[in-house]
Amino acid sequence: MSTKPFILVTNDDGVNAPGLLALKEAMQSLGRVVVVAPERDNSAVSHSLTMDRPLRVRQVDEDIFAIDGTPTDCVTIAVEKILTEKPALVASGINPGANLGDDLSYSGTVSAAIEATMLGIPAFAVSLVVGDVFRFGAAATYAEKVGREILDRGLPRDTLLNVNVPEGGADEIKGVRFTRQGRRVYEGSIKETADPWGRKHYWIGGGTPLWDDGDDTDAKALPAGFVSITPLHLDLTNHDALACLRKQWPFGDG
Amino acid sequence: MSTKPFILVTNDDGVNAPGLLALKEAMQSLGRVVVVAPERDNSAVSHSLTMDRPLRVRQVDEDIFAIDGTPTDCVTIAVEKILTEKPALVASGINPGANLGDDLSYSGTVSAAIEATMLGIPAFAVSLVVGDVFRFGAAATYAEKVGREILDRGLPRDTLLNVNVPEGGADEIKGVRFTRQGRRVYEGSIKETADPWGRKHYWIGGGTPLWDDGDDTDAKALPAGFVSITPLHLDLTNHDALACLRKQWPFGDG
Repeated sequence: MSTKPFILVTNDDGVNAPGLLALKEAMQSLGRVVVVAPERDNSAVSHSLTMDRPLRVRQVDEDIFAIDGTPTDCVTIAVEKILTEKPALVASGINPGANLGDDLSYSGTVSAAIEATMLGIPAFAVSLVVGDVFRFGAAATYAEKVGREILDRGLPRDTLLNVNVPEGGADEIKGVRFTRQGRRVYEGSIKETADPWGRKHYWIGGGTPLWDDGDDTDAKALPAGFVSITPLHLDLTNHDALACLRKQWPFGDG
Repeated sequence: MSTKPFILVTNDDGVNAPGLLALKEAMQSLGRVVVVAPERDNSAVSHSLTMDRPLRVRQVDEDIFAIDGTPTDCVTIAVEKILTEKPALVASGINPGANLGDDLSYSGTVSAAIEATMLGIPAFAVSLVVGDVFRFGAAATYAEKVGREILDRGLPRDTLLNVNVPEGGADEIKGVRFTRQGRRVYEGSIKETADPWGRKHYWIGGGTPLWDDGDDTDAKALPAGFVSITPLHLDLTNHDALACLRKQWPFGDG
């Protein structure tokens, strides 16, 4: 059918990641799919944009392109330069490892969906809790469900969905919770080490996430066996704080 | 006075940037200052965190440290490993070039203040509209005003301030507007180019920002001659959309 919706799939783990292939296949049941993804792993690059050098686009297959840049680079170059029509949906993932709470601020997976939203395209990111083995089946199933609803219903203006799927098979998942973003504080997340000359270095990572959250957060849904879907907004303004500042601070409001 | 507040200053342009020095001097009128900044320019790195290699800390001066990482790396390593006490304030900037609307999602300057806020420290980012010459005087003056208010009054939970200063001297500035984050759409922001072997490349940058905004936005305040102060929230949840999804989408809410 020529009326099938056109879907862009990307990720932050690179064009060869198995999660990307699983998402591509899931989206192919909803429409025509093109993949534009980073050449290499871009985890924790956040919403980085590469502006200090030209970016090369490599066509890997008929419907797969790789760019030597970040997930954000991929989305903007795909939409502006590679794709022959504007996608109806952008899907980012499947990330091996959850993107919850404050962590999603660092996430390349989520940033690709943010970039798409900035360009006016409905988008979602999907991440999978990491177990001993990555089994993308359940995440792909829920990605398809979410993608179908977005294509049918659209999304509110300037809003994307951040989807996280718990470990295990689709039959082990209890359902979906619509959640708000939790807060996490890491403790002991920087390791001290030394280089071969004995100079002190620091390595960021690991640590124990301490969750400061309520029952309606993304971080609480997953351990309870539910998929979390959190709607995220491009507008970072704290509107309550804005009203307070205008009343309480001494600077004249022009 | 030993009761003077302790202030961390950082930026995304690197430890040698003149804007950093101007901000350091402005903050020194408010308290004891330590600088921890990237070794090199990190513009548009967004909230990137370096986790794939150890980071080296170089002490440049008694109160200045450089790290071969991102602004986010600098804040987290400074607070967790370098500083002997928790700062009362983190100030990031002065960035040459405004950070307005959607652009602040890419901004390393703003991300440093976001990281500080995540760590529970009041923070602000300050950026200056770029003219023919960078004159940091007015931005430093307003950074001092904003820093003093934050130290006196604190900030709402999980909230940072994004400060932008128009071109010109302090006496040319009409005042301060408390603003919300605007929206921008870039048009024609990717240039096509070729490498020496004739292969097509794309270079992101330039383009004309089209502002889709109202009178109460950051982007409108600056051309009118006002400093904009936008309170930003760590919580990206679109709470209105969350209520809609719960009502309208067919997935069972556990």
